[in-house]
Amino acid sequence: MALPTQTRQWVLTHNPTSLPTLSGPNPTFKQSNAAIPALKDNQVLLKVLYLSNDPAQRGWISYHANPERLYLPPVKVGDVMKARAVAEVVDSKAKGLKKGTIVTANAGWKEYRVADASECSPCADIPGLKPTHFLGALGMTGMTALYGLRDIAKADPADTVVVSGAAGATGSMVVQIAKNLIGCKRVVGIAGTAEKCRWVESLGADVCLNYKSPSFKDDLANATPDYANVYFDNVGGEILDLMLARMTRHGRVAACGAVSAYNSSEPMQFRNWFQVISLRIQILGFIVLDFAPKMAEGTRELIAAYKEGKIRIGDETEMVVDTAFEQIPRTWMMLFEGGNTGKLITKVKSGESASL
Amino acid sequence: MALPTQTRQWVLTHNPTSLPTLSGPNPTFKQSNAAIPALKDNQVLLKVLYLSNDPAQRGWISYHANPERLYLPPVKVGDVMKARAVAEVVDSKAKGLKKGTIVTANAGWKEYRVADASECSPCADIPGLKPTHFLGALGMTGMTALYGLRDIAKADPADTVVVSGAAGATGSMVVQIAKNLIGCKRVVGIAGTAEKCRWVESLGADVCLNYKSPSFKDDLANATPDYANVYFDNVGGEILDLMLARMTRHGRVAACGAVSAYNSSEPMQFRNWFQVISLRIQILGFIVLDFAPKMAEGTRELIAAYKEGKIRIGDETEMVVDTAFEQIPRTWMMLFEGGNTGKLITKVKSGESASL
Repeated sequence: MALPTQTRQWVLTHNPTSLPTLSGPNPTFKQSNAAIPALKDNQVLLKVLYLSNDPAQRGWISYHANPERLYLPPVKVGDVMKARAVAEVVDSKAKGLKKGTIVTANAGWKEYRVADASECSPCADIPGLKPTHFLGALGMTGMTALYGLRDIAKADPADTVVVSGAAGATGSMVVQIAKNLIGCKRVVGIAGTAEKCRWVESLGADVCLNYKSPSFKDDLANATPDYANVYFDNVGGEILDLMLARMTRHGRVAACGAVSAYNSSEPMQFRNWFQVISLRIQILGFIVLDFAPKMAEGTRELIAAYKEGKIRIGDETEMVVDTAFEQIPRTWMMLFEGGNTGKLITKVKSGESASL
Repeated sequence: MALPTQTRQWVLTHNPTSLPTLSGPNPTFKQSNAAIPALKDNQVLLKVLYLSNDPAQRGWISYHANPERLYLPPVKVGDVMKARAVAEVVDSKAKGLKKGTIVTANAGWKEYRVADASECSPCADIPGLKPTHFLGALGMTGMTALYGLRDIAKADPADTVVVSGAAGATGSMVVQIAKNLIGCKRVVGIAGTAEKCRWVESLGADVCLNYKSPSFKDDLANATPDYANVYFDNVGGEILDLMLARMTRHGRVAACGAVSAYNSSEPMQFRNWFQVISLRIQILGFIVLDFAPKMAEGTRELIAAYKEGKIRIGDETEMVVDTAFEQIPRTWMMLFEGGNTGKLITKVKSGESASL
């Protein structure tokens, strides 16, 4: 195959204040073409095979008055949408990173990207595991669950742990790590359909509750008879507020995400704030990037746990959606529609490239 | 004087859901009389001279579905309203606690109370200090400021500290301890009138902002050019929400009180919640009673700081309101009307006792 000279890409057109729009007069993203620069020394040409879909990406495209305060530079209007990817090295001027190597890298919503070799992490070849697992269970997602639970929330075997978004990429790892690695006394999941709840229970949760049930508030009280020492919060909003009233004294909330609020300009409402004081609750915001120095170690630990059968990683922990390049934003939007169980992965269909 | 056989007292009639009412068909408190039991061994009869007024008392009279979860048992309907007091021992069956001794104790809104000697702390006699200071700067209030700032928020000399309710009992001690004891780089107060703000600045704050000013939001941004490492929160609500956007990375919020919400059934609204995650903010609820084992040590430390001239304690740090017994609830309500500068103390006027 001749090497491409152009790539298709998806570019941010404006900062959405609510749910991004994909059609109509003012879509949030627009497809365009860009020339692929020639490789310099120590660079490779990546062909994107799979894209990671993460709720955090929604934050990267909001308007920020003080972008220097963010944990990562945001995506600016006119820039290619950022995303982590599994990619194949299709051309290389880097020793030690040969053509054909499968890597993870920050590639963005592009077909092809020129990257420095140092930005690329080759995917280890482990029986039973696929490269996409290095975007999810063995990537940032798994590290978020591991370090959020252990280093931030300090979950221990005597603890009751509640996790929201339990059927999501991070939540499903939190359930497994809490129950099967740390050995927490009780693990309660919260998810959005009965089917998701049963799957979360199959991963090890003692019980998983459907927050859309009219009896959810009572269900949550019944599921936490000794209250919760740890709440791993992926969603914010009303569930966080309810959980403030279900924490033990000196309970810890690992504040990981607030997906309920990402597409809303409405404020979050707390009726139970005083519990934070009265029960001496600690609410601990964290970003997995702070654990970058420990990622290799954490990945090794989760691979070992997988090999020992303590945690399940496989087709069931990811949802791979075959997606034409034109549909990349559409697949991503499933994150905000309760559409995925486990890690949502976009498999970029090989199609007619812009350059051919 | 013949010893009294009866005492007047104020009793809770219902759990208010908003601002307590003192008049009308259903007042929150009602005055009644009670017999004074005979002293047993190791008991004393206390005559209440001064009452401590604390925003936390408002929480003690709310309805609580799970009172066992509170940090202290609440005041039940029909019970005497709880309050800390300076009192005189007017009769004693306890060795070592003679008639005439001035003590602090939990006496409640009563004229007289029989107490175990072990519940009473004699007030040290220190030149320049009055017994009432052991309710405020040298009591729970001072300990809240000291341990909240140092042990909870871990304020250090490199930090910018912001404190709300800065003209209040706790806030005015936070300002002094932050600036003059810990030596924090910058201390910013927030209070409710220009006059209070100037007083807070006289205590050592680099600047104090009036939150009622229409330019408050901009003032707060201008006053924290390097953002805030520590926010000592006495008020909750909108100011807390604004502060989430003014914290540094890894900033700490000591969640001490939420006086803005105590008399409201409306939820608190947060527009800046995502900052907790993005900036890895820690929100740390605390209750001074957890530091009970360190209170004697803390009091000694603040007395030493007072003697060295590092912190000011005196008439200016308390507001003593001469109050007839019938008006005790009225004086207490000043807490929720922005009525006090420094510690609000009720001086119970000697009047006709129920027993005479």
